[in-house]
Amino acid sequence: MDSGQTLRETLHQSITFEDGLALDCGRLLPSLTVAYRSYGTLNADRSNAILICHALTLDQYVAETHPLTGKPGWWDTVVGAGKPIDTDRFFVICANVLGGCMGTSGPSSPHSERPHEPWGTDFPAITIQDMVRAQKRLIEHFGIARLFAVIGGSMGGMQVLAWAALYPQMVFAAVPVAAAAYHSAQNIAFHEIGRQAIAADPFFYAGRYWAEGVTPQRGLAVARMTAHITYLSEAALTRKFGRRLQNASDLTVLGDRFEVESYLEHQGSSFVRRFDANSYLTITRAMDLFDLAAEHEGDLANAFGGSKTRFLLVSFSSDWLFPTAQSRAIARALNSVAANVSFVEIMSDKGHDAFLLDEPDFHRTLSGFLAGCAEHARLL
Amino acid sequence: MDSGQTLRETLHQSITFEDGLALDCGRLLPSLTVAYRSYGTLNADRSNAILICHALTLDQYVAETHPLTGKPGWWDTVVGAGKPIDTDRFFVICANVLGGCMGTSGPSSPHSERPHEPWGTDFPAITIQDMVRAQKRLIEHFGIARLFAVIGGSMGGMQVLAWAALYPQMVFAAVPVAAAAYHSAQNIAFHEIGRQAIAADPFFYAGRYWAEGVTPQRGLAVARMTAHITYLSEAALTRKFGRRLQNASDLTVLGDRFEVESYLEHQGSSFVRRFDANSYLTITRAMDLFDLAAEHEGDLANAFGGSKTRFLLVSFSSDWLFPTAQSRAIARALNSVAANVSFVEIMSDKGHDAFLLDEPDFHRTLSGFLAGCAEHARLL
Repeated sequence: MDSGQTLRETLHQSITFEDGLALDCGRLLPSLTVAYRSYGTLNADRSNAILICHALTLDQYVAETHPLTGKPGWWDTVVGAGKPIDTDRFFVICANVLGGCMGTSGPSSPHSERPHEPWGTDFPAITIQDMVRAQKRLIEHFGIARLFAVIGGSMGGMQVLAWAALYPQMVFAAVPVAAAAYHSAQNIAFHEIGRQAIAADPFFYAGRYWAEGVTPQRGLAVARMTAHITYLSEAALTRKFGRRLQNASDLTVLGDRFEVESYLEHQGSSFVRRFDANSYLTITRAMDLFDLAAEHEGDLANAFGGSKTRFLLVSFSSDWLFPTAQSRAIARALNSVAANVSFVEIMSDKGHDAFLLDEPDFHRTLSGFLAGCAEHARLL
Repeated sequence: MDSGQTLRETLHQSITFEDGLALDCGRLLPSLTVAYRSYGTLNADRSNAILICHALTLDQYVAETHPLTGKPGWWDTVVGAGKPIDTDRFFVICANVLGGCMGTSGPSSPHSERPHEPWGTDFPAITIQDMVRAQKRLIEHFGIARLFAVIGGSMGGMQVLAWAALYPQMVFAAVPVAAAAYHSAQNIAFHEIGRQAIAADPFFYAGRYWAEGVTPQRGLAVARMTAHITYLSEAALTRKFGRRLQNASDLTVLGDRFEVESYLEHQGSSFVRRFDANSYLTITRAMDLFDLAAEHEGDLANAFGGSKTRFLLVSFSSDWLFPTAQSRAIARALNSVAANVSFVEIMSDKGHDAFLLDEPDFHRTLSGFLAGCAEHARLL
């Protein structure tokens, strides 16, 4: 299954905008490349496009075998022929986010002034809104004036909210799943653990590891492990592992013993093969900076005033990273400006990760919402 | 305030038992040193002793200036003349736990066969019960047949439970605070993040950092930061920091920006001065292994059958590390064997850390319980 390719060798479908992208930090990214995948067919009036926004460590390989890991697409259960996001009906696009490492401009792409070197930590600090602006370039390139829907979970949900706030006229329907309108102090703290672990790795070389031909694998693995705990509920961790010992007789201090430890280590070590450490720093920082209300005089409702977009908010009951209360706050803000909003809390004990897993109630809700919106959009 | 002393230079009051200690792992620790502090006066019939069991990263300096940090004792608000644990009335003892680094035998004490070297990672794997057995030696040394009370929070609460299970006749009253009868999969996972971060530090040298004259400071700091997040509630983190930026204009990827980050970094870096990395590995492992029910045919009630000890269980409503449900499960087990048990959930939004903070309801509950027990014990 595994292609044996390394992160740097892998080629991605992409398009480059030579005029670059003006960023929130005030800098201009001199040239913007957006890597993407698409599924299904764009109809004649270009009205059936769904943009999927991916989460922190995912990428554009939504519904096909991943070129590096050989694993199925991360939303294979949701996107495909006859599935909730039906590729027989919709033209589905997913772009690697700005700052990512799967082909879109990011810390591992060539530096604008020293093209034989990657940007590394010289890559500008970016925001969720910058990611959305990069996606908008791609959408315009396809000649799409209005997206039928923008859908995404976790950081993808943040992008959905930013799309709806920045370009309401381009978004007919918006589905932020397991999302939040800002990153909480606890969320920032967990990210900071990961960043400190990466910075503490002797192979980090202040972000210039690429020049040394190494990667800060152990630090990045610790970052991934930390994040992974926050993606699972206590119940999911317990169900998966409980307190099962691997080698109950081997009572030593440094050896592996609990199954949960080996699992985390596996999560960490498989991750470092497919992710760039500087991308991790850049993207986590973008999430931390996200605070939609703060950009609208402290009132989230102001972000959506007059919006005609149809919203479906989905949360999962055991998600403690982006808990239901966060989605409810968004629903309240939308209600206060009389927006069209549905809000569903799915009962699940799988934690934040539930949006990626087999959750029939979520999938049925999504199918139903899209069917209703398609009727309203006269998308036959 | 700061003494300027290093961890290794600091001297502690201690007693050594040359016959050593038989451990759960089957090994004999050839010589056992227990460092301790005491407050108040032991009465003539030696019936007024209270043993305080400390948490993971605390030590025996309960109610006096810490010799290394110059800070007040960690339970200064609870222990002292006229305070809930009244040193005018009780003889209060606290011992550094087995495996610790403040004078009790642990990875940084001299190796039994190579006394010019510390044990390091050769120090045996220990359990919470081993810690209790070491404390029992100290209590017997004082000629105390029965402790009036054993009190402790977090890992200290685990020790209280182990005391009550192992030596019920020696414990008149037991107060496990913010405790649990086992370490959950999530708890183990958070510890494992810390251990991986320590192991990933280039200055760890597979635990032989002492031979190189260095310490794995950055890894240990990441471990401390991770643990620290679990000690605070989301509300406490938000109240302390919210999303306040330190330098809002400085939009770079690697620079500090959120106050919560600087705070965590401070927590991490001040910790490494007073704590040994191998101790951290040893003690977190002991916590992970703790599962009182598993040692009693899977039924926690069996641990306490026939117990005459008077229990006060205390939990805090916003503690997500050792949540109320864990204390309630202990209360249920005690009730099922008709033990004498009170259980109080204190409403607090300070998270697990609440047991160390100014919580008047908790302090009043503790005072009242001890007063009642003193009456029953005819301690006048």
